[in-house]
Amino acid sequence: MWTIIEDTFNPASQHHKETIFTIGNGYLSTRGAFEEGYPGEHRATFLHGVFDDAPIVFTELANAPDWLAFSIWIDGERFTLTQGTIETYSRRLDLKCGLLSRSILWASPGGKRAEITFERFVSLAHEHLVFQRVRILPFFDGTVEVRGSLQGCVDNEGLTHWQRIDQGTRDDVTYLRMHTRSTRIELVEAMRFLEWEGEAQIWDADYSPTRRFFTAAREGQALTWVKAAAIYTSRDTSHPLDSALDDARKAQGWEAALEENRKAWQNEWDQCDILIEGDDESQLAVRFSIYHLLIAAPRNDDRVNIGAKTLSGFGYRGHSFWDTEVFILPLFTFTRPEIARNLLNYRFQRLERARAKARANGFEGAQFPWESADTGDEVTPTWVPHFSDRTRLVRIWTGDIEIHISADIAYAAMRYWQISKDDEWFITRGAELILDTARFWTARAEFNPAMNRYEYHDVIGPDEYHDHVDNNFYTNRMAKWNIQAGLEVWSWLRTNARSRADELAASLKIDESSLSKWREVAEKIYLPAPVEGVIEQFDGYFARKFIDLAALEPRDISAQVLFGIEGCNETQILKQPDVLMLMYLLGENHSLEILKSNYDFYTPRTDHNYGSSLGPSVQAILACRLGRVEEAFEHFLRAARADLFDIRGNAGDGIHAASAGGIWQAVVFGFAGLQITTQGWSTTPALPNHWKRLSFRFKLGGQVQIVDLIPTK
Amino acid sequence: MWTIIEDTFNPASQHHKETIFTIGNGYLSTRGAFEEGYPGEHRATFLHGVFDDAPIVFTELANAPDWLAFSIWIDGERFTLTQGTIETYSRRLDLKCGLLSRSILWASPGGKRAEITFERFVSLAHEHLVFQRVRILPFFDGTVEVRGSLQGCVDNEGLTHWQRIDQGTRDDVTYLRMHTRSTRIELVEAMRFLEWEGEAQIWDADYSPTRRFFTAAREGQALTWVKAAAIYTSRDTSHPLDSALDDARKAQGWEAALEENRKAWQNEWDQCDILIEGDDESQLAVRFSIYHLLIAAPRNDDRVNIGAKTLSGFGYRGHSFWDTEVFILPLFTFTRPEIARNLLNYRFQRLERARAKARANGFEGAQFPWESADTGDEVTPTWVPHFSDRTRLVRIWTGDIEIHISADIAYAAMRYWQISKDDEWFITRGAELILDTARFWTARAEFNPAMNRYEYHDVIGPDEYHDHVDNNFYTNRMAKWNIQAGLEVWSWLRTNARSRADELAASLKIDESSLSKWREVAEKIYLPAPVEGVIEQFDGYFARKFIDLAALEPRDISAQVLFGIEGCNETQILKQPDVLMLMYLLGENHSLEILKSNYDFYTPRTDHNYGSSLGPSVQAILACRLGRVEEAFEHFLRAARADLFDIRGNAGDGIHAASAGGIWQAVVFGFAGLQITTQGWSTTPALPNHWKRLSFRFKLGGQVQIVDLIPTK
Repeated sequence: MWTIIEDTFNPASQHHKETIFTIGNGYLSTRGAFEEGYPGEHRATFLHGVFDDAPIVFTELANAPDWLAFSIWIDGERFTLTQGTIETYSRRLDLKCGLLSRSILWASPGGKRAEITFERFVSLAHEHLVFQRVRILPFFDGTVEVRGSLQGCVDNEGLTHWQRIDQGTRDDVTYLRMHTRSTRIELVEAMRFLEWEGEAQIWDADYSPTRRFFTAAREGQALTWVKAAAIYTSRDTSHPLDSALDDARKAQGWEAALEENRKAWQNEWDQCDILIEGDDESQLAVRFSIYHLLIAAPRNDDRVNIGAKTLSGFGYRGHSFWDTEVFILPLFTFTRPEIARNLLNYRFQRLERARAKARANGFEGAQFPWESADTGDEVTPTWVPHFSDRTRLVRIWTGDIEIHISADIAYAAMRYWQISKDDEWFITRGAELILDTARFWTARAEFNPAMNRYEYHDVIGPDEYHDHVDNNFYTNRMAKWNIQAGLEVWSWLRTNARSRADELAASLKIDESSLSKWREVAEKIYLPAPVEGVIEQFDGYFARKFIDLAALEPRDISAQVLFGIEGCNETQILKQPDVLMLMYLLGENHSLEILKSNYDFYTPRTDHNYGSSLGPSVQAILACRLGRVEEAFEHFLRAARADLFDIRGNAGDGIHAASAGGIWQAVVFGFAGLQITTQGWSTTPALPNHWKRLSFRFKLGGQVQIVDLIPTK
Repeated sequence: MWTIIEDTFNPASQHHKETIFTIGNGYLSTRGAFEEGYPGEHRATFLHGVFDDAPIVFTELANAPDWLAFSIWIDGERFTLTQGTIETYSRRLDLKCGLLSRSILWASPGGKRAEITFERFVSLAHEHLVFQRVRILPFFDGTVEVRGSLQGCVDNEGLTHWQRIDQGTRDDVTYLRMHTRSTRIELVEAMRFLEWEGEAQIWDADYSPTRRFFTAAREGQALTWVKAAAIYTSRDTSHPLDSALDDARKAQGWEAALEENRKAWQNEWDQCDILIEGDDESQLAVRFSIYHLLIAAPRNDDRVNIGAKTLSGFGYRGHSFWDTEVFILPLFTFTRPEIARNLLNYRFQRLERARAKARANGFEGAQFPWESADTGDEVTPTWVPHFSDRTRLVRIWTGDIEIHISADIAYAAMRYWQISKDDEWFITRGAELILDTARFWTARAEFNPAMNRYEYHDVIGPDEYHDHVDNNFYTNRMAKWNIQAGLEVWSWLRTNARSRADELAASLKIDESSLSKWREVAEKIYLPAPVEGVIEQFDGYFARKFIDLAALEPRDISAQVLFGIEGCNETQILKQPDVLMLMYLLGENHSLEILKSNYDFYTPRTDHNYGSSLGPSVQAILACRLGRVEEAFEHFLRAARADLFDIRGNAGDGIHAASAGGIWQAVVFGFAGLQITTQGWSTTPALPNHWKRLSFRFKLGGQVQIVDLIPTK
């Protein structure tokens, strides 16, 4: 179960399929748009870190010049799926090596038939190289013409980010040099044909340098073209043109390059694969999720992060959220710690901007932005146009008050340290993330003298259906955890890295007086007592209107759309259940009994299908802990199908990266019940009934651990 | 004095010069960007009516695919002014026939020298045809390569509006078909080389179809290429491709086409020229202004209007304001009434949308949008990003409350009728514009029972430094004029076009009761009594802070920037003087004495240099009326230099169309003192001392009138 297959062409699912069939290597990704183009396509190649300014959203990943452009003339008629007859069609993505192929038996409007096969991969072995092979098997005698281009005329849904610098041909390499309009990042693409048929021409038309081949076609005689391109930016080197020309010149043949790529992929899968026997759908969905996180994972760059839609679509513009630390990171922390470290280093390097954000709000410490891109400044849009009244604007508050992300980042740093036991990193980098967020939470806490406690007012928790709330349980509890973690880290550092502790004491102004303030706040952060076992999500939640969600079925819109932003805020309906989320992250602090009462209370109040795509996997894990395996599997499937089946209808905007990461967690922490203990690790399997085997590897302190669960019936 | 000359190349004035050197024919305009391109250029071709959706500004003229693209290789080195040596440089715009030429003696970095001459014009004789000639005189033996393209990769300052449909070559015509993203307007450009040197190739690269010529160069032997292109959109015909191919095929040679164009221009100048002897600068500036209005004037399309920056730049996105009716229209009303009629028809056709706007605000009648584009809906941006704080937005109120435009349009319709005596048009169209705006003003008036009068609250007058004011004199007085005009028109219609009157009575619900309401409101609209001869611009103006503007000199920013939007609002500083503006339009109602007292009061309070570009020409006219000719001339020069000398620093955004129209008015109504009387017309010359002759023509009731003023000293 390694192959995603599409065997009919349906233009209505064009954007969904472009997302599904994205290929990538952690340096760049290319959506599954057709080589020859198709009307309305959301064609895109994104490179990590290549952001440019944009109205409203401040900055976005710039859709790069299109290395894939390839057009075909069958005896003078341009090949396009908008015309002629599609006699057979099949598209396959081989997850094992990131090879995307498409084969069409096409009859032109004029009646000429040919089988056309496209293949593409971006090399995981050499991340600046991309490859394309086109094979044409004509069923006629006549001519075939093909044109392979570097297409600089690209845009982000109408916004163009690229300006041409120059272009040209050196020997057999044709290149295009452009830079982004505002951020002035230079990008060079250099292409070379490794195999070709026919007489070659170079068309050096501005923005669209093209190699054109014209050849006779004989019935039954296959024709093959292989195009390689090398891609560099000024983020990678000060001489991107030289590097791109050089790499393009040295590019090996298709087979050799593919083999090298295969090996690199094998190495990834050896570390990250999850084997599920007895359930093909789950097996494929799990590998699909891992694949999409692997192709988005920066291996050689710790100045970038993974966006909420990976590099696979225009959604959220490449911005990163808590999705990375809480949902995506565990896969890497447990299987590819080097990647987890890169992602955490991205945050570490942006501590200065997090401090600036805290400072601007009047606080000490580090307050990370809700949405983060290149600089580490807050890039959540503050205002967006109202969806129906064009003269109105809607204020987006998450960038101002969804503050829990600072604790989430600290949590992920701590977790990475615990699993990797990477003390060197923790001393030089991780500790500071935890200490400086602890400072923020201490400063941000508001003392309520009447109750002699600290509170956090006017926040948004993970459940974004309710904003401007006080004492959100998730936020308060994570704040407490963060400050306590700060105290623990501090005492560990003082013992184990004295000089670093002295350094941080000076730079973060940590002294006995500040530490005693940390202790006081942590101790007195308000956490509501359970009422009949149920913890109130925020002050006043219980008094909000109960809505019987089951009675609203069937429905195909979110509760927020159904009731309106304000209307939904007044109900108990949850986008995702904050209290359960907290019990997942800090499970050791809550008994099974209290988990059960909260699960039973909050689950029917949650908009599982159309609320947050982050919810279902966590729901599955908690259901496993409660021994409700079939229910867990139902939630798991909801996550597993989010992108493959586009059940939320928005997969065209890009992969739900947090959901993909959640799927891995659901299998590992839910069905396998993996727990890290002081002695090592343990599993508490709760496999779905039909699963015959669940097997995977992870690393603990750098050592590979093997989990292989085979239920005995 | 027919030629605008630039004889050195200064990249710092690139955008200003692109505006100045715009060519056009009332169907399209092309900015004076270099054929071969230059970094940072604001290259653009705009077609009337070709709008597409855009964020914040709702809609904008879409910068069309570039018909001008032409690149040159001198013995293998690409010609560009960014490299090599510019030995001589000259650019000339011949206003007499709209021919732009540029000649450069260039030495390549490699030392090859050539004289390169570019010429271009868009045909006034055949508005779908554009022509380009390139001549190269090599001073070396070697090769010359040129590439002429249709470049589809274009944008509006980062926003791309065009999607490729297809492209190709039929016989010797190469075409590119695209459509706008949202409004789906199809546009076809088809090019053909009428003269060429060297071996021709067609490079059919997507978005950038190119004809490439490669030839040997011999020292001293000139080489010539002539490229013609035909441009059609789906606004013109249901088969734009056929029309474009057809026209391109039939395009005549350069000389013949230029001659035809010259004749068409001669015909325009015969009607519109103003001759000034004794003052070359004024002569050239006046012709320059007329030229820019003539190239923006739709001759064969009454579904479009002229934007505040004509078709010459990105400023104001092609939107039309009162600038058309009050500043631009008089030139056409008096010299080219057919064009004036087209522009008024544009408003007439959008009455339905004006009614919808009134209705949405709770009023009867027609309320025209402050900014108008294709549909006639209000397209003033409601919010724009704050210039320094990116999280803030600034609310733009003009679209809500700068309501005087409805009266301005009615005024222009009345004026057109009076001058053209075009009763047929007035009966079928013009009358309704006046009647339905009269209804609006009646409905919009607020009764103040304490004072037994009608008032208009919360408006913005022409002086936009003060917003949300009550009883703006300009607005109140124009409202009164409009309602009175409605009553007059109604009684004229009842007598002269009874059946049309019946029709309008039904559709506009005009009956005795509504007419008596009109009478009552018109009579009781509050107009403040002069205080020591000075009329207060709006309630409370006199109490605002006086600022001694002279004491702030020298300054190079507007008072609004100096004091801030709010700060300026609290002072008496005017962007333009509303009371004087009103006395210009309705001069017959005010004595010279009261004009003088208001002129003397408001003039020193006006930000002449950096306030509204609409002000200086009106100021000049009123100064003439007061016999202050030298002062008038100073204001006139301020208008005349706005674009030619870029004295406001923003000419790069496009021609100040209202200022250009104002210049014509300043000469005709100011210095010549033309007045239309019941008997015919008269002049009251007030020529600047050094003017030896002022001569022009205009039409009254379709008859050509000649004014020829030669002062006797």
